This record gives sequence, C-alpha cells and structure tokens, in this order.
Amino acid sequence: MDYAVESLKKHYEWRGKIEIISRVPLKTAEDLSLAYTPGVAEPCLAIQKDIAKSYLLTRRSDMVAIVTDGTAVLGLGDIGAEAAMPVMEGKAVLFKELGNVDAVPLSIRSRDIDEIVNTVRLLSGSFGGINLEDISAPRCFEIERRLKECCDIPVFHDDQHGTAIVVLAAVLNSLRLTGKKIENINVVINGAGAAGIAVARLLADSGVKNIILCDRIGAIFEGRSNLDAEKLKIAATTNPERHKGTLADVMVGSDIFIGVSVPDCVTKEMVKSMNKNPVVFPMSNPTPEIMPDSAKAGGAVIVGTGRSDFPNQINNALAFPGVFRGTLDARASCINEEMKIAAAKAIAESVSHDKLTENYIVPSPLCRAVASCVAAAVAKAAQDSGVSGICKENV
Amino acid sequence: MDYAVESLKKHYEWRGKIEIISRVPLKTAEDLSLAYTPGVAEPCLAIQKDIAKSYLLTRRSDMVAIVTDGTAVLGLGDIGAEAAMPVMEGKAVLFKELGNVDAVPLSIRSRDIDEIVNTVRLLSGSFGGINLEDISAPRCFEIERRLKECCDIPVFHDDQHGTAIVVLAAVLNSLRLTGKKIENINVVINGAGAAGIAVARLLADSGVKNIILCDRIGAIFEGRSNLDAEKLKIAATTNPERHKGTLADVMVGSDIFIGVSVPDCVTKEMVKSMNKNPVVFPMSNPTPEIMPDSAKAGGAVIVGTGRSDFPNQINNALAFPGVFRGTLDARASCINEEMKIAAAKAIAESVSHDKLTENYIVPSPLCRAVASCVAAAVAKAAQDSGVSGICKENV
Repeated sequence: MDYAVESLKKHYEWRGKIEIISRVPLKTAEDLSLAYTPGVAEPCLAIQKDIAKSYLLTRRSDMVAIVTDGTAVLGLGDIGAEAAMPVMEGKAVLFKELGNVDAVPLSIRSRDIDEIVNTVRLLSGSFGGINLEDISAPRCFEIERRLKECCDIPVFHDDQHGTAIVVLAAVLNSLRLTGKKIENINVVINGAGAAGIAVARLLADSGVKNIILCDRIGAIFEGRSNLDAEKLKIAATTNPERHKGTLADVMVGSDIFIGVSVPDCVTKEMVKSMNKNPVVFPMSNPTPEIMPDSAKAGGAVIVGTGRSDFPNQINNALAFPGVFRGTLDARASCINEEMKIAAAKAIAESVSHDKLTENYIVPSPLCRAVASCVAAAVAKAAQDSGVSGICKENV
Repeated sequence: MDYAVESLKKHYEWRGKIEIISRVPLKTAEDLSLAYTPGVAEPCLAIQKDIAKSYLLTRRSDMVAIVTDGTAVLGLGDIGAEAAMPVMEGKAVLFKELGNVDAVPLSIRSRDIDEIVNTVRLLSGSFGGINLEDISAPRCFEIERRLKECCDIPVFHDDQHGTAIVVLAAVLNSLRLTGKKIENINVVINGAGAAGIAVARLLADSGVKNIILCDRIGAIFEGRSNLDAEKLKIAATTNPERHKGTLADVMVGSDIFIGVSVPDCVTKEMVKSMNKNPVVFPMSNPTPEIMPDSAKAGGAVIVGTGRSDFPNQINNALAFPGVFRGTLDARASCINEEMKIAAAKAIAESVSHDKLTENYIVPSPLCRAVASCVAAAVAKAAQDSGVSGICKENV
C-alpha cells in the first residue's frame, strides 16, 4: 500500500480524527438545569473554594493538552502550526485508544519561546497535564524547563522522554536476552538532539555507566569545542573516559548502538567492530541508520527500528498513553525519573519470559494491555517518590 | 428538586461532562500507518502548501474554542479559571448536542487583556472559531474587538451577541402577536453591560428607532456624565430624543422592556405605565427584574425570562449552536450583523404561526430542530454578505 496516497485520501474522508462528545444526558429541561444553569453554579462554587476539586468535578483528571509549535514535525521540519495538526490529532487518537486519556491538540502560531511558555502557562488550569510535541531542539529544552517551573501540572516532552522510556525498555529486554549486566555495558548513541540527550540521561539514571553520545562532529566529551548548553551538560555526565573520534571510532567494542539521527550513517563494518552479541537500534525514520538485514549481516543479535514493517518497533506509543494515564490517576505534580524508569520496566516486563526473543523484545504499539501496566507502574512510582497528589489507598 | 445539591452530586458522578474520542479505526498496523506515521506526513504537507486545507484534513471545520477568563461567570462574578470550567463544559455539551459543534473549553489564568488576546491569537490556527464567554465588561469589548482584528477566524462573544440574537427573536415574535411595527416601537433596556449594549445594537440594526438604554444611574443619553467608552458609543446611536431620568421615568409609554440587570428593579406600576399591550422580558437570572405574575398583573401581554420554569425562556442556547454551525459550514471569516439578524429571524420563524401564542414566542432551548434552521440561515447570510470562504454551491 502507498501510505502517502492512501492516508491523504483517508484524511479527506475522515474530516478530522477526533471529536468532542457529551458524557451527560440532555433530553429534558431537568437535564439542562443540572448540567448547565442553574445547577452548575454549585460545582463552580465548590471549585472556587478548593481548586483541587477541579480534578473531581470537571474532566481535568482525564484531559491533557498536546502542545506543538510545528517546528520539528516528524522528519518534515518546521511546517507550521496548522500543518502539524494531522500529527497532533493522530497522537490524540493514540492517547484515547490506548490510555483512555482525552487529549486536545493545540498548535501555537509562534516560534518565540516566551510566547509559547506564556500561552501554555495561562492554559494550565484547563488541563491535568501538558504533552509537548515536535518542538525543535534546543528550544524544546528551555520550553520544557521553564514550563516545569511555572506550571502546577505535569509537563512532558514526548520526543525526549517518551523515546527515552521505550529505548530503556528495549535495552532492558536486550540485556535479559544477551545476559549482559547494565552496569557493564558500553552504549553509543548517535544524534544529540532532544531524543538522544534524553535517552542518554535516562540510561545513566538507570545504571548505565559508559555512554558515549555523538553528534555530527563525533563523540561528545567534556572539554570538546562546539558544544551548546545542553551538550555541555550531557558531556559532564557521560563519556567518563573522554573518548574522542568519529562515530565509527567510538562504536568499536560497544555493546549497544542507539540511533536517533540520520539515515545510512552506520555500516555493516561498524557493527562488526562492536563487542560480542551487539544490539543495534537504528531508529531514524523512515530510513534507519542501517537497514536491519545489514545490521544482522554485521553480527547484530538484536535489531530494533522505528518502523512497523520490521520486528521490534521502538515506538513512543508504547509509553505516553500509559505514562499520562498513571500520572493523572496519581494526580502527580510531575513526571520524574522514577516514574519514567517504572514505565520502561513495565513495558519490558509486559513481554513475558517465554515470549521474549530477538525478534520480540518490545510489544506492538497496538497491544492494549501495555498502557494499563505502564499506568499502574507509573502511579505507584509517583506514590513511592512522593509526588502523588492523592492518598495512597485511592490510587 | 434542589438543583444545587443534585447538580453537585451529578458532577461528582460524571467526572467531566465532555470527552474526546477517536473518529478513526486503530486496530491494525495499517490503521496506525494511515492515521499516524508514516502516512500522516502527506496531509501535513498538503496543509503546509495550502493552509485552507486544514479545514478539510483536520477537525478544524467542526472545532471551536470556548474561551473564558472566569471573571463574569453566571451571576457568580470573578470566580477564577478553574471554577469557570463546569459552565464551559456545560456549554460544550450544548454545542455538541444541539449544533454538532466540537467545543474545547479553555480557561485562561489571567485578567490581563493583552495576555488573553495573545493567548487566543496564538491558538487560532487550531480552531475554526472562537466563542468568548463570561468575560467581564468592559474588558470583553476590547478583547473581542482586538481578537477580531488579529484573528483570521470568527470571534463571537456569546454573552453579547448570543443574548442579542435571542432577544431579537423574542421581539420579532412579540411584534407578530401585538401587531406593532418594529420601526414604531419604543424599547427600554435596563442594564448597560455586555448583553444590554449588544441587544441595543442589534435591535437598532434591525430597524428599532427608539431605544433607551439605562444603567444604574438611569437613562443613557448623549452628553450625560459618567459614561465609559462603550456607553459613549451607544449613547450616540440610541435615545435620539435624549430622554433623561430614572428607569421608571423612561419606561412610561414604552412598548417593550428588556432587563439584563438586577433582580426586582421593576414594579407592577412601572409596567402599568407602559404603552398598550406591553411586552416585558425581565431576564436577570435566577431572579428576574420583575416576576412574571407581577408583570402580568401590571398588564404585560407577553412575559419572557431567562428561566426554564416559566414560559418563554430567552436562552442563548437557542442561538450559539446554530450560529457556529452555520458559520463553520460557510467557513465565514466573521459573524456579521446580517448573520446575527438571520439567526434571530430563523429562531423566530421556527415557531409556526399556528403555535405562536403569548406563552410560546420562542422554542424550547432543547428543541433540536432550531439549530439546523439557524445554521442554514446563518450560512446563507454569510454567503449573501460576502464573508463565506467557500463557493456558494457547496454551502
């Protein structure tokens, strides 16, 4: 099937992929008096007295905003607010179908960080959480950081943390298969944008000691020139032995390669240079850093990509619906490292031991059971780490 | 039934009155590839080339934002962004159930006009229209005016124009019953806030020549002191004979009284002082300017209030669902006077001649047929007045 042609045709038929419906009856004058005036004054006053009641008396406990500025949409780049909307609506479909989360796509007509932050901040009383999406790096880092400071609801940049969670899940199950220990592995990540930096951070927080992150120039190490603020920070906590050189140089002897970069930048020979039983996740979309057959020819024992037409699709949809469901259920004030790691473990553990093989290290993004496992684990982690807004027995 | 108690109980049960659902299948990998990646890139690119395609390829043609700052919610005043949400969700229910319009409630945590305008402006690419709601006067006038200037989608302050449309409909059908001509009647409006001023404007644009608007001080006339910018403007176009005095003074000899003010400010004697066959619309909620039985005792032949427990409920819900449905169907760039007058006539005409009586001058807000009549009339008026964005044969 030609997905481009068929998808365009379907979008014309659909006229929008989401819809807002009523959850209440509206047949009689009494219905109107209860859902609207005069009855509605009473829940309004209850929330005025105690804003926390907004989580019980309105849809806030199930409602998130998907916020973009359209600057880094798929691989298409800066296509603008309106053109980003088909992706945002698609994301809202996944939120609802997989996590039972109601998601409102909001595309902001601005490239200005202050304007974007202010817009989201002013709307944060209407939602239970904010999912940032497809905002270009390095702007996305500052936008997320500032929003976390000024909003009283969780803010989550999915291109960073959703990707990091699913990659960590894939790494964990790779280790179950190869028998290697997380504290001993060498990981090379190519691509030091939003996803690459977030993956490096979450792997480090999960116990990986040797991570080398590469950008277009090569390995990132403390003291290297040409490092922006985010790369400076990550240089301080990765590559402890300050390995220098190209991607090919630092891949020698590594255990796991993670690509969030550009097509065709890894060769069979580079895979051959890796440690015994190498694991390769070339996730550039739609064309991976190396095609799975070449990676296998180079000796890779496990290959995972971003694509649905190869085994082991490492897709954010495994993470964000359950992460937000659990966050909302716990009424967590943030989505912290503990919650992200719990989400990754839940995704990994949703593949049972007897089903775990080289070609099945993560479940399908459409597997409906995953999100509820992730949600439960995330809600528990929110409780255990002290960021849940409601008492334990109600989670 | 005690609506306050019962409504609060229901709101706890409902946990939100709206919900966002998917309109597309998501069962197979193919479904995912069409609704999301990789297929979704194609509709994105189509919109990037031509932003007007956003009306065909996303939900924009059916989606409006209900925007408030929570400063003038019902009769409760400035209760804040979160506390306003039960009303906004109720409004979204009416939008969907009556007009098949998908409405997203957005409550802005700001009282600052610049911030509110900027927030809505930046989000206007995500919606097909903006319904402003429960924003205090006189701020609402400036916010609406500035948004109309800077947004390329229709902006409609329902407390002004929705009220004005339904009042005009009630006036038109009152004239059918009393046999008076619109150009000959004297109208007194008490309350010079958002609703009162909008009602005065729309009545003037519909042919009423003698309108006297009163505020707390009394009749508004050109040259009076204590007039803010909006009242100065309306003073220039109403009360041509510059009648002075109290509400009681100017009601003498009037044909129609319209109250959008405070409870109990009109007496039976004041109704008695009106012209033959007086018509009285005391719409203050929940307690009218004069109770219907007193108004009748004073000689009123027709009485309409804002309440559902009396005949002739003059309720915005008769207008806004159909007005936006028609506006979106015509892809109109604004909601102009012609469209508002067409909406009022459609509401009035939806009461057939044989059903029109003193106790049935407007249909029930729950009458499902009204919105589609209004929508058709509004779309046609948009075409005829040259503000429709699509060619005539498609409306």
